Amino acid sequence: MIKALAAKSANKKLEPFEYEESIGANDVLVSVEVCGVCHSDIHLADGDWGDVFPLVPGHEVIGTVKQFGESVSGFEVGQRVGVGWQCDSCNECEYCKDGKETFCLKNQPTCMGHHGGFADELVANERFVIPVPEALDSAQAAPLLCGGVTVYTPIDMYAKPGDHVAVVGIGGLGHLALQIAKAKGCKVTAISTSADKEEMAHQFGADEFVTEPATNTYDLILNTAHVVLPMGEYIKALRGGGTFVQLGVPAEPFCIEDITSMFDGNKKIAGSGIGHPHKIKELLELAAEHNIAAQVQVMPMGEVNEAMDITRQNKARFRVVLKN
Amino acid sequence: MIKALAAKSANKKLEPFEYEESIGANDVLVSVEVCGVCHSDIHLADGDWGDVFPLVPGHEVIGTVKQFGESVSGFEVGQRVGVGWQCDSCNECEYCKDGKETFCLKNQPTCMGHHGGFADELVANERFVIPVPEALDSAQAAPLLCGGVTVYTPIDMYAKPGDHVAVVGIGGLGHLALQIAKAKGCKVTAISTSADKEEMAHQFGADEFVTEPATNTYDLILNTAHVVLPMGEYIKALRGGGTFVQLGVPAEPFCIEDITSMFDGNKKIAGSGIGHPHKIKELLELAAEHNIAAQVQVMPMGEVNEAMDITRQNKARFRVVLKN
Repeated sequence: MIKALAAKSANKKLEPFEYEESIGANDVLVSVEVCGVCHSDIHLADGDWGDVFPLVPGHEVIGTVKQFGESVSGFEVGQRVGVGWQCDSCNECEYCKDGKETFCLKNQPTCMGHHGGFADELVANERFVIPVPEALDSAQAAPLLCGGVTVYTPIDMYAKPGDHVAVVGIGGLGHLALQIAKAKGCKVTAISTSADKEEMAHQFGADEFVTEPATNTYDLILNTAHVVLPMGEYIKALRGGGTFVQLGVPAEPFCIEDITSMFDGNKKIAGSGIGHPHKIKELLELAAEHNIAAQVQVMPMGEVNEAMDITRQNKARFRVVLKN
Repeated sequence: MIKALAAKSANKKLEPFEYEESIGANDVLVSVEVCGVCHSDIHLADGDWGDVFPLVPGHEVIGTVKQFGESVSGFEVGQRVGVGWQCDSCNECEYCKDGKETFCLKNQPTCMGHHGGFADELVANERFVIPVPEALDSAQAAPLLCGGVTVYTPIDMYAKPGDHVAVVGIGGLGHLALQIAKAKGCKVTAISTSADKEEMAHQFGADEFVTEPATNTYDLILNTAHVVLPMGEYIKALRGGGTFVQLGVPAEPFCIEDITSMFDGNKKIAGSGIGHPHKIKELLELAAEHNIAAQVQVMPMGEVNEAMDITRQNKARFRVVLKN
């Protein structure tokens, strides 16, 4: 019997919840050590993303392999592993066959249609279970499984070593983006209107801290703030061939006054969603090599409701991680 | 003395205009055989892009080498060559040193600050003079120098053989995009609300013709229409990893109601500007191999004002080319 914490309906506090899980031929049963609290968990619990109840949130899991199905290979009992947003995919469609499982239209989120990581155990398909390098601290690494890979993927796609990367907003995603861009050998600028975050930005790897972007300067801009920035200014801030990635979720429509400003310079605007297991693996290895660590506030799993409130109110500095 | 046709100020008819041009050490003097009429020429002549007068428009030039500076190598007198939107760059900045001359902040357009191709001769830096393969017809190839490469570049960047490319709008850019995508080995869909263009779309290489996009279907969508499409629908129409490229110039702001619809699937929106000489060269070679040809209406250079009116009124089927 798995012991978890679940919300029975929208906007309800999480409460103890128990269930049996079957372990399929390709499944791994993970004994949960820690699980990060992500804004997506809040959206799910608040009913923003539909009727997903009873809901056991949690998709930034690190734990150890407890058991696995008969077709699983490459894992050992006791091995430390992680699970992120996705726990399975159809494994039959063009995307899955092409190694693009995150795009699978039947992609299965770890805590939607499945019971997530706010529990003592969790089941995931072996393809979505990622070995965790020994050097990493579980609590500091857990947020890399979702938040971290969401920023790692566009940095990996759109920037190369030596490129200039700007990160707007120094919060849960931003403080990871600064560290990752630095570790990838980029020049890193933090952009924030909170002048008191300057010292912190430098600690996370920013080469400079500014309150306004410069013109024709950045190969990649990541906006982690939940607003639509003045896009005319930010398109001008990109160098030729540059990319602007929106990560924060704004309440208003995303408008570009003059789309032709993106024509010369072949500029791009991109989104970044869930991370592919290969990218999570790369990120964990990069983190082990370069001491990338989420700044976390660790709380006992039993304090899940307080942990979620801290995240909901944007009071986490910078991520809350629950520990069994 | 070069004999050209020039507008002395905005919204004035073009009239005969003569001038001397010096030929620098790295310059090539091209004897103009044909020059396409592009919408940019209309914008320039109509004063939309500032005080560029006296203006000799024309930046889709094909002609023959008449003379060249002492440092030029690799060209012969009499050789057929083309010149597109750009005729020079600083050759010193990071972009130029990195082979990205189109992004040079001092990039020099062929008919802004220089006298363009509505003339009997024209001067361009050797780095922007492109050999024209023998198999190509000059008039049918001229529009490839600007219009063609504007669609070739994003197809080359964002689609690979076997990918599904949709082209919205079957006009000057659209009819070239269909041919280029087909020649690159893509599956090609034409999207147009003009049902009478179906047969034509198939002739240009479209595998299918639809009036509305399908969902989760296209790796690349090129919008050549001068409108903002219903972006919610078009983002859904992209496959995971897909790219939407805006080429048409809309009068209104470009708005995406829900930017998070681009997150899952790591979707992108991109612009496409002027083409790099290497890309023009690739396109001309592809055109020679696959019989890509602009559908053109050839008019004598002396009828430049009529030719510009036809283009201004969107009556060209599909591009007007002036011939000396």
